[in-house]
Amino acid sequence: MRITYVTAGVVLALLAACMPAAETADQLPSWNDGPVKQAIVQFVQQVTDPTNPEFIPDARRVAVFDNDGTLWAEQPMYVQLAFAIDRIRTMADAHPEWQHQPPYAGILSGDSATLAALSMHDVSEIVTATHSGMTTDEFRRLVSDWLRTARHPRFDRPYTDLAYQPMLELLAFLRANEFRTYIVSGGGIDFMRAFTEEVYGIPPEQVVGSMGALRFELRDSTPVLIKEPGVEFVDDGPGKPIGIERFVGRRPIAAAGNSDGDLQMLQYTAADPGSPLTLLVHHDDAAREWAYDRASSIGHLDKALDAARARDWTVVSMKNDWSVVFAFEKGPR
Amino acid sequence: MRITYVTAGVVLALLAACMPAAETADQLPSWNDGPVKQAIVQFVQQVTDPTNPEFIPDARRVAVFDNDGTLWAEQPMYVQLAFAIDRIRTMADAHPEWQHQPPYAGILSGDSATLAALSMHDVSEIVTATHSGMTTDEFRRLVSDWLRTARHPRFDRPYTDLAYQPMLELLAFLRANEFRTYIVSGGGIDFMRAFTEEVYGIPPEQVVGSMGALRFELRDSTPVLIKEPGVEFVDDGPGKPIGIERFVGRRPIAAAGNSDGDLQMLQYTAADPGSPLTLLVHHDDAAREWAYDRASSIGHLDKALDAARARDWTVVSMKNDWSVVFAFEKGPR
Repeated sequence: MRITYVTAGVVLALLAACMPAAETADQLPSWNDGPVKQAIVQFVQQVTDPTNPEFIPDARRVAVFDNDGTLWAEQPMYVQLAFAIDRIRTMADAHPEWQHQPPYAGILSGDSATLAALSMHDVSEIVTATHSGMTTDEFRRLVSDWLRTARHPRFDRPYTDLAYQPMLELLAFLRANEFRTYIVSGGGIDFMRAFTEEVYGIPPEQVVGSMGALRFELRDSTPVLIKEPGVEFVDDGPGKPIGIERFVGRRPIAAAGNSDGDLQMLQYTAADPGSPLTLLVHHDDAAREWAYDRASSIGHLDKALDAARARDWTVVSMKNDWSVVFAFEKGPR
Repeated sequence: MRITYVTAGVVLALLAACMPAAETADQLPSWNDGPVKQAIVQFVQQVTDPTNPEFIPDARRVAVFDNDGTLWAEQPMYVQLAFAIDRIRTMADAHPEWQHQPPYAGILSGDSATLAALSMHDVSEIVTATHSGMTTDEFRRLVSDWLRTARHPRFDRPYTDLAYQPMLELLAFLRANEFRTYIVSGGGIDFMRAFTEEVYGIPPEQVVGSMGALRFELRDSTPVLIKEPGVEFVDDGPGKPIGIERFVGRRPIAAAGNSDGDLQMLQYTAADPGSPLTLLVHHDDAAREWAYDRASSIGHLDKALDAARARDWTVVSMKNDWSVVFAFEKGPR
């Protein structure tokens, strides 16, 4: 059974009457009471109760999460792009030719119009310049070091503080119920693995992302893996169910996303013959975070929003369903 | 500390004096007592003992295993190729043109010389013809159905009975000590996932293998993944450490292989700064299984054997170190 806004009143009344909601609800303190929180709690209760017809054995309890805009903020630019731009600045001394070469020249001059107008081709060039030519270990160290010092432009805090507190609680709640929680993101797999364990409690083997080529090399007879230029797999849109099949080899029973890049992953999960949990995070809170959907290029949300409404997926209103967005806020509103 | 044949006598004496070997050794009843079994038991004791300088936390306990020739028999041909050839026969009615077209004609005539002389190009064509044009679910069902009925030509038993009993015990022993056990094989990932959970206790998300392209499709609005022709990733030789980095994102602390295709995986594991376990299974038992190494095309073992001997990796003699090869044998020799 899936819960919609329409049937929510009925369901709430039923739930209040028949289940120990308070007990489990405590594990999601940053979620306001309402149909969305109830949908999550009911889903977990159903699949973990051996007497329930919707019961799912542990081995099949796989939940997949998009990262940017679903687990942490993606505005005003993807964190990975902010990292790449800072790397360009750091590397500029060794590349004097960049002073006169677009898009590097604009980035180095600090011209915000250049940053706003970066094309996909520019981004691809910047990512190649900053994400290849080193070992995977060296790259992860660069990312870790950067995350320790870089600050988000709006909140003046480490980017890792921009993880959504309600989603951290949801990840922990699912894991406490024998779920394996995966990230399935269009972001780079090596970039994410530098912080997902510390920030989300998600180990590297449960991170699926876009990938560049790797080359095995014996360096002074020590084997290393070198990050090469070029993208081998784009884990976005239809790439997400493909990434899930490749890495997990099972259809998830829960998925969360926030943009059209997550549509196929949500469709794939929703097609589970049981009663899967299909969450779409809607950014509608300009005061605490940002408000954007159909008109935004970052986190563009159009078809997936229509699909969610047409198919009774669970739409999470950041404004209404979350009492806290970031842990650094002082308590609930 | 790594254990070699040379130092084994000393180590054995030390072990007998100072550790409760009997207790843990019981978990490997099909391994004969000797330096190899002791190397395995000592490795596990070291990395799981918090007071030992070689202690490794649970999260880093990753062990990787080649499949063909390491976990089950690969003679007289790879099981996956036997499947493909049987599929060609099953599909032949729908492909009358195959009767006059190499390599199909030779396969359909049952000519064993044709099978022995299949080129890499032939194998690639056969695999494409039999492994694409269907959903991943449909393909796995074909493999499961085939494994239930097909018989190994020498032993006249299901292929899955050809799993090596000592390796099944080793997998279980490692998992009982909080290891995650991965398969990292040149074989097809979808083929292996049809049986690894049942036969080895290894779930789909811990199977890394060669991969064809996948295509996401909405079929009557139901999302499916179609197996497409063409190979996207060859998980063999230098591809194995790359596959490990991609799927696991950590360097293993234990690895087992049996051929030159495993050399780079063994090198990569052996480079762990602690005292990793690096096992090379040597097929030297023509009576119970097969004896082959440098002269064999299947399971060709030459450089990896030299490397193992030069670098003190643990070479497993199937003849001397295993009291039982297959579970269907009646007890130890």
